Amino acid sequence: MTDFSNAAHGRLSPEELEKVLREVGAARYHNRHPFHHQMTGGALTKPQIQAWALNRYCYQAVIPRKDAMIIARAEDPEFRAEWRKRIEDHDGSDGWNGGIARWLKLATGLGLDAEKVKGQRLALPATRFAVGAYLSFCTNRTLLEAVASSLTELFSPVIIGERVPAMLAKYDYVTPEILAYFDKRPTQASRDSDFALGYVMRHADTAEKQQTVIDALVFKCDVLWAMLDALAYAYGEAGHIPPGAFDPEMP
Amino acid sequence: MTDFSNAAHGRLSPEELEKVLREVGAARYHNRHPFHHQMTGGALTKPQIQAWALNRYCYQAVIPRKDAMIIARAEDPEFRAEWRKRIEDHDGSDGWNGGIARWLKLATGLGLDAEKVKGQRLALPATRFAVGAYLSFCTNRTLLEAVASSLTELFSPVIIGERVPAMLAKYDYVTPEILAYFDKRPTQASRDSDFALGYVMRHADTAEKQQTVIDALVFKCDVLWAMLDALAYAYGEAGHIPPGAFDPEMP
Repeated sequence: MTDFSNAAHGRLSPEELEKVLREVGAARYHNRHPFHHQMTGGALTKPQIQAWALNRYCYQAVIPRKDAMIIARAEDPEFRAEWRKRIEDHDGSDGWNGGIARWLKLATGLGLDAEKVKGQRLALPATRFAVGAYLSFCTNRTLLEAVASSLTELFSPVIIGERVPAMLAKYDYVTPEILAYFDKRPTQASRDSDFALGYVMRHADTAEKQQTVIDALVFKCDVLWAMLDALAYAYGEAGHIPPGAFDPEMP
Repeated sequence: MTDFSNAAHGRLSPEELEKVLREVGAARYHNRHPFHHQMTGGALTKPQIQAWALNRYCYQAVIPRKDAMIIARAEDPEFRAEWRKRIEDHDGSDGWNGGIARWLKLATGLGLDAEKVKGQRLALPATRFAVGAYLSFCTNRTLLEAVASSLTELFSPVIIGERVPAMLAKYDYVTPEILAYFDKRPTQASRDSDFALGYVMRHADTAEKQQTVIDALVFKCDVLWAMLDALAYAYGEAGHIPPGAFDPEMP
């Protein structure tokens, strides 16, 4: 395992910094997690996929809030106007016709009750803690770090390209309508990560700032990874569902 | 599993509220976690116990900070003077002769490097997220909820009474000196939880406030439970150590 904590001994060129960031993704993005491999390999049970959708909803639901926090801290109107597109993507025009609503359709398409998913009370505590850590990070760290933590989107078109065809092929109850959330995401994510990467390149102009940017991306990979760890443990074969969490046998 | 979310339909008497809080503990405190049972049953490997000590250090280290946050929000000088004892217990007179230092002795007594433990970089991300959630909770919720979240100490003398004799009996490398942290904790915890319980009884004077108190204790049990979940998954037989975390085979 590469130790990215010492990656930036001196100031890196923009090309070198981008290379390190892509190495972070190659080593730590959650497409390397066993749970993802089980998903694309057709090895998950329907309750496991339900648990994934229900827990991931908590993450989807916090995205516009963390993006609003980033906008709230940005002094440049052009930056704010660009970043605002992210909120629009997830909330839509009326709050319930954007990405969050499409994720809810994914969850209900898998047989989950919409109110239970929206209530988030059945999500794993570890999911809530990870998602809360992401919101806190975007609230308390520098704007540069908050922007850099979004750079996992550099890698999301790849994971979506793996996930969607595999799920359609391997699980007969998964339909294109259920996965409609993912239709728009690669285009949106590429637009957003291009902008965020450009911002990071312009503003990470010292070795110290570059290290904070690398650490921010490591942090965000940890968030996504910890969410899959928690799912794998709680809903794995041994069955370690924590008290009060979604239990497929008690619908 | 009892659903404590609907426990308080009307306002409870102090005795009824205490009964519900003790039911929360009986159902959700981490002495019910399989990892604790493995520990007291002598079934953990030394690397697993090392990982427990290293991760739990993050929790110990944040306690004085969350207590300072509680003091910072309290307007009553008597309350502040009482609560201050908690910081003194953990930091000692010079920062390194209280509970945190004793926990560090526990970790180094198990063969871990003090600086690596103090640095916290090798802890599981899930540990950091859970601990961070606890600090955020004490920062952002009401003072009553922050106080109530400390009430897991009602149950800590029991778990210490299970843990210490079992560890001394089952693991030949565990000595009374290594476990010195726990010598003072039952007395301190009883004093602290008596005070906190009295505060909660006096201030949770509506059904709504009583529900927030119950939810706060559930939340705190979730924090402790999630920490053991993460340990069990990462350092269990299958070996799912997340990228960058403590790896016993790479010392």
